[in-house]
Amino acid sequence: MWGVLRAALRATGRVGWPAALCRPMAASGPAAVARGSANTAGIIIIGDEILKGYTQDTNSFFMCRRLRALGVSVARISVVPDDVEAIASEVAAFAARFTFVLTSGGIGPTHDDVTFEAVAKAFGERVILHPELVALVHKFFGKTEVQCPEMKLARVPESSRLNYGTDRHTGNTFKYPLVSVHNVYIFPGIPALMERALDGLAHLFQSKQTHFHSRTIYVASDEMFITPVLDWADATFRGRVSLGSYPDWTSNYYRVKLTLDSESEQDLEEAYRFLMRELPPGIAVPLVTDCVSPAAVEVYGLAESGSALGQKVAAALQTIEEALDRYSLVQLCVGFNGGKDCTALLHLVHAAVQRQFPARQERLQVLYIRTVSPFPEMEQFIQATVQRYGVQLCTVEGSIREALAHLKEQQPQLEAVLMGTRRTDPYSRTLTPMTGPTGTSGSSCASSLSPTVSSMTRAGASMSCWTREGPLRCHRTIPAPACPGAVGLCLLPYADGVDGPLALRLCSSLCSP
Amino acid sequence: MWGVLRAALRATGRVGWPAALCRPMAASGPAAVARGSANTAGIIIIGDEILKGYTQDTNSFFMCRRLRALGVSVARISVVPDDVEAIASEVAAFAARFTFVLTSGGIGPTHDDVTFEAVAKAFGERVILHPELVALVHKFFGKTEVQCPEMKLARVPESSRLNYGTDRHTGNTFKYPLVSVHNVYIFPGIPALMERALDGLAHLFQSKQTHFHSRTIYVASDEMFITPVLDWADATFRGRVSLGSYPDWTSNYYRVKLTLDSESEQDLEEAYRFLMRELPPGIAVPLVTDCVSPAAVEVYGLAESGSALGQKVAAALQTIEEALDRYSLVQLCVGFNGGKDCTALLHLVHAAVQRQFPARQERLQVLYIRTVSPFPEMEQFIQATVQRYGVQLCTVEGSIREALAHLKEQQPQLEAVLMGTRRTDPYSRTLTPMTGPTGTSGSSCASSLSPTVSSMTRAGASMSCWTREGPLRCHRTIPAPACPGAVGLCLLPYADGVDGPLALRLCSSLCSP
Repeated sequence: MWGVLRAALRATGRVGWPAALCRPMAASGPAAVARGSANTAGIIIIGDEILKGYTQDTNSFFMCRRLRALGVSVARISVVPDDVEAIASEVAAFAARFTFVLTSGGIGPTHDDVTFEAVAKAFGERVILHPELVALVHKFFGKTEVQCPEMKLARVPESSRLNYGTDRHTGNTFKYPLVSVHNVYIFPGIPALMERALDGLAHLFQSKQTHFHSRTIYVASDEMFITPVLDWADATFRGRVSLGSYPDWTSNYYRVKLTLDSESEQDLEEAYRFLMRELPPGIAVPLVTDCVSPAAVEVYGLAESGSALGQKVAAALQTIEEALDRYSLVQLCVGFNGGKDCTALLHLVHAAVQRQFPARQERLQVLYIRTVSPFPEMEQFIQATVQRYGVQLCTVEGSIREALAHLKEQQPQLEAVLMGTRRTDPYSRTLTPMTGPTGTSGSSCASSLSPTVSSMTRAGASMSCWTREGPLRCHRTIPAPACPGAVGLCLLPYADGVDGPLALRLCSSLCSP
Repeated sequence: MWGVLRAALRATGRVGWPAALCRPMAASGPAAVARGSANTAGIIIIGDEILKGYTQDTNSFFMCRRLRALGVSVARISVVPDDVEAIASEVAAFAARFTFVLTSGGIGPTHDDVTFEAVAKAFGERVILHPELVALVHKFFGKTEVQCPEMKLARVPESSRLNYGTDRHTGNTFKYPLVSVHNVYIFPGIPALMERALDGLAHLFQSKQTHFHSRTIYVASDEMFITPVLDWADATFRGRVSLGSYPDWTSNYYRVKLTLDSESEQDLEEAYRFLMRELPPGIAVPLVTDCVSPAAVEVYGLAESGSALGQKVAAALQTIEEALDRYSLVQLCVGFNGGKDCTALLHLVHAAVQRQFPARQERLQVLYIRTVSPFPEMEQFIQATVQRYGVQLCTVEGSIREALAHLKEQQPQLEAVLMGTRRTDPYSRTLTPMTGPTGTSGSSCASSLSPTVSSMTRAGASMSCWTREGPLRCHRTIPAPACPGAVGLCLLPYADGVDGPLALRLCSSLCSP
């Protein structure tokens, strides 16, 4: 029965097993990756359902984050099937190589729950009915028969210890313990239970001497461009600071994320200063996580910068401000279909409203004219945008004509819809800002609106959105309707260029997680 | 240099390696888990960032799903650090045990990209500059210097093969190949690139003789209750059908999901019939993924069933239908704050509207009175509910008094708000349906409304929602306002019991993913 473990010990050349079991072991052997003195952990995720692709394992991600925060270096994760031999050989190999082994899954009552049996086999132990667990089965399930399914929970390796965790919030001791065998901790597979157990037993893994320190640098350039500096930094700090380089294709703010990790804060800071000094100037950028709160400052800053782009933004803001002077927020809404043009428009309108009415109670109203079968990514982006900007979304179905008629029926107080189109679109070149009835108040205006709406829609609305996997582009043409004349329409043609880099930048960065 | 691989071969007792490399190998050894004749795969995910908990691995989940669909049984997943020795020893062990090995990550230009070097080491090969890859680096990056960072992409094990995938959508051949060495396929770590490459190279892994068949049974009882039957089924079909049992704590429709898998459709159907026959009657339940479309049929079916619950639902429907007779959909909205009472109400109103106006264009309007700091789970549930029922959400901030005043200003056509409270709540016992002004049309009605609103709000609104981790409950009291008298209020007191099992059932099942 000691066979599996003995073979594993022979394979790694380790001796002195019983002594090593009594205290946490330092990592060694070819697979020991922690370069410092930290305790190591191996995680074994048990379950056919993961290997078959039915279920995504999230437990190892949680365990890795928690263990790192506790000063433990996770050296390996293995996903194995519900198979006694497979689990036993992995447990034996991991127990001999890492300070801690955490398993997850396979401790329920059914035939495919074989973890206790496998751990016993790994250590050459028998499985016994543990008296304390038998009492708990009786207490919780009211069962005492040795052969009942519930009693399988009490059948554990003979050297098992029972670890009662503590609820972090209440301070109460958990009623059911976690079983451990030597340095192997046997967690449940249900994520909520596993997370609760690990949080409640953090003291078992917490390192007194090890704290991981880390810093991140975001770089707005291609990885190839900084490779020589990274090689140099790695050669300089190897063994003291671990340096990771991760391209990100979804962010429009940065292209590479650099991570620096060390057990020494001093080494970390030295490496950080090294990189900030040696990286080409200007390519280390701040991480933008909220582009909405500072919108007014940023947008007006750009408008007042005098740059070519700034001048175009200033022209667009002037049109928006004119609309805000003429209509109250209750009378106004912004057309929004999830595309990059209207996302840029919404951002500019938000900036103008934020500046003009910083203490307003009303939400900015947004009109989404829903097509028959919108792309799911688009709908998600629209919902995310509603949350991000805190706007009031009004969804109307059908063609622009039907939608505007329905909107006026539902919200008769509306006087104007801000819409974005591009100066460079065909049919848009001849448009001027504030096309449509101005000054009139919700009255019928079919004749004066028709040409505008026709022009806009005949041009074909171009909608695009970005997914996390990269750009998804789709083009659909909205058939040209006759104008219902129910709602005053305020058309906002961007200046050339504004819809290009600005809109794309906004759209993709807003989509990033 | 052959050391690592030779040791691995010795450890598993395999001989005849060079011959085995020429064709896919059947699985063997203690870790071979496929019980049938299927080709096996081992997945090696390479990256410090995953072990440190910075990044969640999603590549193995994608690979498992795709490989299974291709008839390949994934036997093991291993996550290893960016370390030549660690990668080499795992590649050597996996290459000897599984038909295919898929690695992911570590093939970029920077110092922490060491996969090619490690795979070469596993097979005792040298790393060479591959002429075809050198040409591609020149083509794509315009670089020819041997020492430039880009050239690292061309430095691969000497026996490398280049596999050009085919775009599934366009049928075009990819411009950049995937490198493989013997039975090891070296995928990129960026998910979008990895997924594209695997989909484009499916033919390399597709099995001609193996198809996995599977069935699922959802059981509305505790796992302990069915364990004897599962044990019996497992003993009867072991080796032919693999049976998995997975408790689900988040669904209110079922408690255990059983999966049956087999390479033989006949064996699978036999095992399925066995279980359906031997499981206690009535506990196998259909999986409900859409409770909205059949709402009218289900709700009216219940109302007409004559059961105690049915009678209460019938009484509630009568009140709703009276409101629908009196007000048009444009004049009506349903109060909704994400709690279980109003979720049940929304479901009943949706059923009544679906039955009365099946071809309607208008969306049902829903009023969400947002508190100052709502729980994020609640907001998510509200957004999900809006999507699920296809309703038009109107969010208003502040107290009920302020909210109703603001609502009337924004949407003056509104005449009535359907709200749900419980007959068993204090202050609700004395209420009758259609409390408030009936027949009046948006006129001021402060005095007649005050008692109702006061009663409702003094009772304290109980809001609860469910998260995927289990129930999250929260209770907050809305301060009793004076009625603004702006909007007619139609109060819908449920009959006793309707808000109990029905509301809870609705709420938790709707929340499940």
